[in-house]
Amino acid sequence: MSYRAQVEDIRFIFDNVAPVEQLRATERFAEVSADLSDAVLDGMGKLCEEVIYPTARDGDLTPAKLENGVVRTSPGFKEAFEAIAEGGWVAVSGPEAQGGMGLPIAYTTAFNEMMSSSNMALGLCPLLTQGQVEALEHHASDELKERYLPKLISGEWTGTMNLTEPGAGSDVGALKSKAEPNGDGTYAISGQKIFITWGDHDFGGNVCHLVLARLPDGVKGTKGISLFMVPKYLLDENGNPGVANDLKVVSLEHKLGIHGSPTAVMQFDGAKGWLVGEEHKGMAAMFTMMNNARLGVASQGVGIAEAAYQKALDYAKERQQFGPIVNHADVRRMLIGMKADTSAARSIVMSCAIALDMATATGTPEWKARAALLTPIAKSFATEVGIDVAEQGVQVHGGMGFIEETGAAQFSRDVRITAIYEGTNGIQAMDLVGRKMMDGGEAANVLLDEIEAEVEAARAAMPELAEPVWQACESLREAVEWLVSQTDMNTRFAGSVPFLMAFGRVLGAYYHMKAALAEGGEGPRSKLARFYIRRLLPQHVSYLEHARAGADDLYAFSLEELEA
Amino acid sequence: MSYRAQVEDIRFIFDNVAPVEQLRATERFAEVSADLSDAVLDGMGKLCEEVIYPTARDGDLTPAKLENGVVRTSPGFKEAFEAIAEGGWVAVSGPEAQGGMGLPIAYTTAFNEMMSSSNMALGLCPLLTQGQVEALEHHASDELKERYLPKLISGEWTGTMNLTEPGAGSDVGALKSKAEPNGDGTYAISGQKIFITWGDHDFGGNVCHLVLARLPDGVKGTKGISLFMVPKYLLDENGNPGVANDLKVVSLEHKLGIHGSPTAVMQFDGAKGWLVGEEHKGMAAMFTMMNNARLGVASQGVGIAEAAYQKALDYAKERQQFGPIVNHADVRRMLIGMKADTSAARSIVMSCAIALDMATATGTPEWKARAALLTPIAKSFATEVGIDVAEQGVQVHGGMGFIEETGAAQFSRDVRITAIYEGTNGIQAMDLVGRKMMDGGEAANVLLDEIEAEVEAARAAMPELAEPVWQACESLREAVEWLVSQTDMNTRFAGSVPFLMAFGRVLGAYYHMKAALAEGGEGPRSKLARFYIRRLLPQHVSYLEHARAGADDLYAFSLEELEA
Repeated sequence: MSYRAQVEDIRFIFDNVAPVEQLRATERFAEVSADLSDAVLDGMGKLCEEVIYPTARDGDLTPAKLENGVVRTSPGFKEAFEAIAEGGWVAVSGPEAQGGMGLPIAYTTAFNEMMSSSNMALGLCPLLTQGQVEALEHHASDELKERYLPKLISGEWTGTMNLTEPGAGSDVGALKSKAEPNGDGTYAISGQKIFITWGDHDFGGNVCHLVLARLPDGVKGTKGISLFMVPKYLLDENGNPGVANDLKVVSLEHKLGIHGSPTAVMQFDGAKGWLVGEEHKGMAAMFTMMNNARLGVASQGVGIAEAAYQKALDYAKERQQFGPIVNHADVRRMLIGMKADTSAARSIVMSCAIALDMATATGTPEWKARAALLTPIAKSFATEVGIDVAEQGVQVHGGMGFIEETGAAQFSRDVRITAIYEGTNGIQAMDLVGRKMMDGGEAANVLLDEIEAEVEAARAAMPELAEPVWQACESLREAVEWLVSQTDMNTRFAGSVPFLMAFGRVLGAYYHMKAALAEGGEGPRSKLARFYIRRLLPQHVSYLEHARAGADDLYAFSLEELEA
Repeated sequence: MSYRAQVEDIRFIFDNVAPVEQLRATERFAEVSADLSDAVLDGMGKLCEEVIYPTARDGDLTPAKLENGVVRTSPGFKEAFEAIAEGGWVAVSGPEAQGGMGLPIAYTTAFNEMMSSSNMALGLCPLLTQGQVEALEHHASDELKERYLPKLISGEWTGTMNLTEPGAGSDVGALKSKAEPNGDGTYAISGQKIFITWGDHDFGGNVCHLVLARLPDGVKGTKGISLFMVPKYLLDENGNPGVANDLKVVSLEHKLGIHGSPTAVMQFDGAKGWLVGEEHKGMAAMFTMMNNARLGVASQGVGIAEAAYQKALDYAKERQQFGPIVNHADVRRMLIGMKADTSAARSIVMSCAIALDMATATGTPEWKARAALLTPIAKSFATEVGIDVAEQGVQVHGGMGFIEETGAAQFSRDVRITAIYEGTNGIQAMDLVGRKMMDGGEAANVLLDEIEAEVEAARAAMPELAEPVWQACESLREAVEWLVSQTDMNTRFAGSVPFLMAFGRVLGAYYHMKAALAEGGEGPRSKLARFYIRRLLPQHVSYLEHARAGADDLYAFSLEELEA
């Protein structure tokens, strides 16, 4: 197979479904012309198709490994990362003052999707670096910005996030890493961090760790946590990497997938660090990074889904069993379902990206609320789609899907982590029904109002699509009302994942309908919309029943009964 | 974790849900007393917990490998298999005349579930041997039976199925392997076979290959195929393995899961074979083996689901994030869902096994039709449950689920093949809406009649369970009516997988209700039934909508449109 970057589809979405036009109307993004947009999408597509995609299997077969304390990356990864850096792709949305392209997050999202299609393990390295750039841009002192941003943006250096500890995963506030003031404005950072993606590598340059740790006067929990920049090499007077800092990679994990991405256990032994943002306000800075990272993970789901679909389609056209199997109804059902779900997920993710960009450009509470609402849905729904589509891709391959050299199984192994990291999909769903509904459901209702207005307008032209989408919006609205009326949070949490999935299903239907409308009701996008709305949208009903089941039946079981 | 064989649950199902009592009322199985039943279940449970389970990780970490033409199995596998053989567990249902226990298939199914929980890769070796015993018992000459059955039943020798070729998977009739008469009653078998599970090993004894090949006068397609016994070692005059036959293992596959099971490419170069059954009637004999194997694969789905659930529960009790995570609503939702689905799948699989046993014992067309109807549902539904529960198990583990040493990921890798082999789940679904509905839906309607009669009787005692189950049966009945009225088979095939899944969902609800009834409506089984019927059963509605969508929208796409 060869990978075909979905430049045309993304362009169509930017033109019709999640319009970049809105962005162009703002001062911040006024210069993002159609020509620039095309050039950027074409450029990243070409890089991913030609340079990145050929490295994916090597990363799987020859994982990164730790040799005498040094991480050796997979064959070809160094050269591929250099090509990314040279193209300026590490900081598509990075500040122009420090060498970034200054483009909307929507373009970074397109890049992250294509990187994930072509080599998700490698793509994590620029993805984490993007997040660090964003965090430093918003929270670091001017001095730190000057020292770090240009090198991170150029890809000479890379960035990591150090949150998790053995006893502190979803409960970040339980962390034990310590920071002691050195008296010279710097801090001594000590502790162990786990699951550190691209915690080290042999690309050269510096590895810049953003580390969460607690100062001596930090209170327990998340409110006593501060954020520090802890570089692998301390900078010399010219700002170049000099003496090694007191930190090391203890080990690399042996993982189900993304073998090419070194996942490190990091040990900090009084390593020198610089405060980012204010003391005890580390979580706020980290959230900047995590929100971006969540959108990035969402685009990984889309990217793997796209690549898995392409591979399965290629196989189904070639494989002969009673004729080419692409002609069998059940294989078509799988393939078209994969394509319809991938398209839905891409539209949701791009709409979330545009909302984030609009929030940046306008600063209005409405856009901020929209972006906040869509982020957990995009992250969870798109990654569930990625997992499901990759599984279907294995199934289309039949017995060959279980053989590793085919590559279909790698997609399913790689994408599995996306439902877990940057906040599990369960955490996302709790965020959606909890924090994101603290407005009494207003952000959700405003979105549903907008959708229903468009659906109403489309009713005459395509009633068979508009009617079920309108009905689904109404059911979703009722579920939102029910949710916000529940004061016991466990009652909300008990059905939060099915609620999120229902929300994603309905949004997907709406974007499919928009695409069909833009196409005039005839053509492949309209066919895909009909498939999705007829066959997949109905799932929202059972999701919503599940969502509203309450928590009592979950707590009716004793531990002994669960064990029996 | 330690594995806890579900002896109690299986006993409960045998007593209440899929009653072994029916079997005891037949002449064939009159001697299966409650005491014997208990002793057998306890014995297999103890073996799997204590001897088999500890070998599972070694199989994953140290896959079987081919060294100088010899297959070296994973550490501990030889000893574990010897323990299985010594216990007589290879042929729980094998004929007593040749040393088998002669017990119902239901007990073999219990064994296969426990083997799959404790080491699925190893469990495939006795599973394939069971199938071969069954095929020989029904189709081989007395001479072949005498020479092979006692050794297969004792576990001194093992058996394989050689169907698939590079160009002949689901389309078995496309195979190219040839059989030439040697003139002495034997045949020279030539050709290449792929995906041969346990195609060779270093356990000692003989490896007995049942091979599908075409005689010179065999017509094209499945009607020209014959079945041959082709042993690795030709038998000497005393019936012991002597000279090596002209066959070899070319290579072993590098697979996503079940690493401990050697999956061989086999080459036959004029190997000596003996005809099993009649010339050109090989498919009939193979189907005997495949139907059993399909039930065996179904029990693998249940076994992995059970083990994945136990592991996830153990972790959730220990892992502290804001308290033990088992106390979080979303984690409980996952765990109880896993348990409810595993229980539903186990009941469906056991009901299928009992139906097969009743068909054997009574020979009535009604029981044969029941078994034929339930087999594809059991195979597909239970394996989908296995895959889904293993995925949820990874999710409960959070980041640790992605780390291979945890073992949660191994379940998800191992179980993935069950949706593919012995006929993909798509093939099963086509069988269900095609061949199994050639009776105009009668077998399905008879089953639904039985269920509805029981549900009616339960309505007074537990209306909140009976009503939704009754409604679901009616919806299923309407879907059956719609299906059988469709003369275009593609219209049926286009929704066959969702139809099968709906059937499984409804059956699962019925068996949950039966369990709740037997328990008197209070207690853990009743709580589980309420969870399932409230939260999971509603999925049948969207499945059935999908099932009835027809094929037109699938064929509306050109290949170019699928590629775009």
